[in-house]
Amino acid sequence: MTAQKSPVTVLGLGPMGQAIAAAFLASGHPTTVWNRTASKADALVAKGAVLAASPSDAAAAGPLVIVCVLDYDASDAILLPIADVLKGRTLINLTADTPARSRTAAAWAAEHGIDYLDGAVMSPTFTIGTSAAVLLYSGPEESYRAHAETLSALGGSHTHLGADPGRAAGFDLALLNIFWTSMSGLAHSFALAEAEGIDAADFAPFAQGIIGLLPESITDMAEKLNRGEFPADVSSIASNVATMDHIIHAAESRGMDPGPLGSVRPLAQAVVEAGHGGDDITRLTRHYLDNRS
Amino acid sequence: MTAQKSPVTVLGLGPMGQAIAAAFLASGHPTTVWNRTASKADALVAKGAVLAASPSDAAAAGPLVIVCVLDYDASDAILLPIADVLKGRTLINLTADTPARSRTAAAWAAEHGIDYLDGAVMSPTFTIGTSAAVLLYSGPEESYRAHAETLSALGGSHTHLGADPGRAAGFDLALLNIFWTSMSGLAHSFALAEAEGIDAADFAPFAQGIIGLLPESITDMAEKLNRGEFPADVSSIASNVATMDHIIHAAESRGMDPGPLGSVRPLAQAVVEAGHGGDDITRLTRHYLDNRS
Ligand SMILES: NC(=O)c1ccc[n+]([C@@H]2O[C@H](COP(=O)([O-])OP(=O)(O)OC[C@H]3O[C@@H](n4cnc5c(N)ncnc54)[C@H](OP(=O)(O)O)[C@@H]3O)[C@@H](O)[C@H]2O)c1
Ligand SMILES: NC(=O)c1ccc[n+]([C@@H]2O[C@H](COP(=O)([O-])OP(=O)(O)OC[C@H]3O[C@@H](n4cnc5c(N)ncnc54)[C@H](OP(=O)(O)O)[C@@H]3O)[C@@H](O)[C@H]2O)c1
Repeated sequence: MTAQKSPVTVLGLGPMGQAIAAAFLASGHPTTVWNRTASKADALVAKGAVLAASPSDAAAAGPLVIVCVLDYDASDAILLPIADVLKGRTLINLTADTPARSRTAAAWAAEHGIDYLDGAVMSPTFTIGTSAAVLLYSGPEESYRAHAETLSALGGSHTHLGADPGRAAGFDLALLNIFWTSMSGLAHSFALAEAEGIDAADFAPFAQGIIGLLPESITDMAEKLNRGEFPADVSSIASNVATMDHIIHAAESRGMDPGPLGSVRPLAQAVVEAGHGGDDITRLTRHYLDNRS
Repeated sequence: MTAQKSPVTVLGLGPMGQAIAAAFLASGHPTTVWNRTASKADALVAKGAVLAASPSDAAAAGPLVIVCVLDYDASDAILLPIADVLKGRTLINLTADTPARSRTAAAWAAEHGIDYLDGAVMSPTFTIGTSAAVLLYSGPEESYRAHAETLSALGGSHTHLGADPGRAAGFDLALLNIFWTSMSGLAHSFALAEAEGIDAADFAPFAQGIIGLLPESITDMAEKLNRGEFPADVSSIASNVATMDHIIHAAESRGMDPGPLGSVRPLAQAVVEAGHGGDDITRLTRHYLDNRS
């Protein structure tokens, strides 16, 4: 005997919205979808989704509405006109944007009697519905608890981060900052390698090796930040500046843009000049925080 | 019966030189050391190292001389005056600097009848002598072969990258560019998290999770670069620019420096404006290469 699964509405069928709707369908949830461009629902309808004619019709289909579109300008365009239909339902916004936008959306929802959770998808579309999916939520804990079982259809790990609706977006942005800074560093490093006659395929395994050092560095940085001490167990920021100079010099000697470290170097140098050259690079975090305008 | 191990000379006893000398001693190589500041040899002498009175005396002690100091200005200061003693011996320079400096050093060595290998240590001091050590070498293959067994005392993986003496330094710089760009991104992201009220210890496990996506991205980037096609399987550079905007906007709304992505964003935008917004971020590598001056 299969228990009746709770109905779900998904608004927005970009790659991520499609993956989300597909995962709900795959685990047997009656799924109603809507997208500005209706044709993106075709494959989902073939798998059993109900295509609604409007966001309002879609939202009316059940107690839980998930929206996942480009940004909060897009989600506002869809949601603001249908506040009356959303009233009394739970709305989970999995769109990525700034923490400030999440907080504004939560205030709007509260004003209109809409139960609101903000969320962030931290893993690519192909992970959704698998054990590799990573999702974060913030907002009222009881709302999260009430829908946790339904959300588990998306697979992987789900974490409720707390009541502040901006918290998931805060994690999201800080994590995306890590990912895209690293990806930009990789893009520049592959260029530097090619400029030095090093083939990308020869370079890749060593690049993976060096990335393998980061998880331990992260543990170390967190520990130092919470202790407020930044001893250079491995290397000092003064010697990191020398390394950055070698890199920037090598790039420029090949006529190439210095890459992301071009903008980091002066800040690291400022840390040295402030008398912290013997500390490690974690001191840079404090520099960013202490020099807020 | 223990075979007689070959004698080794180590010039430079910073943290890395000390780790190298200690590993040779630990595996039974007669080890002669020298450092500008002699007191840094004390712990090694206690373990059986011979402290030489000068670089020249140190180099005279055996067939293999390893130098590992701050940069090539420092190694030149030590080596240039003792070319006559180095003649006929093998010199391995494990100091980090630019590929151009390695090539200049190799040319100088050839002129003076010194067998020269350039190398790079790609892992921290505490890995030396363990299976986690990573060392790269370039220069004459037969010189590498002749000393490979002695070098294996340093533990871990040793790779000879080819005859071009600048090749190890090229790998080194491109790999350090990855590491320090990522570390800088982490430093900025911990600051962004704290500005959003997120504790470093709460943030760390998610940071490790997102770093875990990079090894697969590296394989993917290398494959795209060698194919010369950059389809956006996961996300387009146009949407990456939108993400960078969210990050930069969130940092600036907290009065904070935009971080490393502040300097990447205009380049990513230039890729979009050049008509490649539908490609993925690997296109940025070509942008760096195609816009060399
Ligand atoms: N893709 C990923 O791997 C991934 C991973 C983690 C998080 N995310 C986040 O998930 C969200 C959705 O991403 P995505 O990859 O699915 O694609 P996307 O390109 O970020 O968003 C496309 C969706 O937004 C809709 N949209 C855009 N402007 C609109 C407007 N003014 N009114 C109504 N709808 C509008 C599109 O409708 P049309 O089809 O009509 O254009 C489409 O449904 C984003 O915030 C993204 O950052 C994505
Ligand atoms: N530490 C690591 O984890 C690590 C990892 C990979 C690669 N490396 C590379 O290994 C090399 C050595 O690094 P390190 O960590 O041992 O310390 P370092 O601070 O880079 O170098 C210190 C050494 O350089 C010597 N030195 C500096 N200027 C000199 C000069 N003008 N004349 C003679 N000697 C001079 C110092 O002598 P005094 O003691 O007299 O000052 C000391 O022996 C560097 O190129 C570094 O990038 C280090």
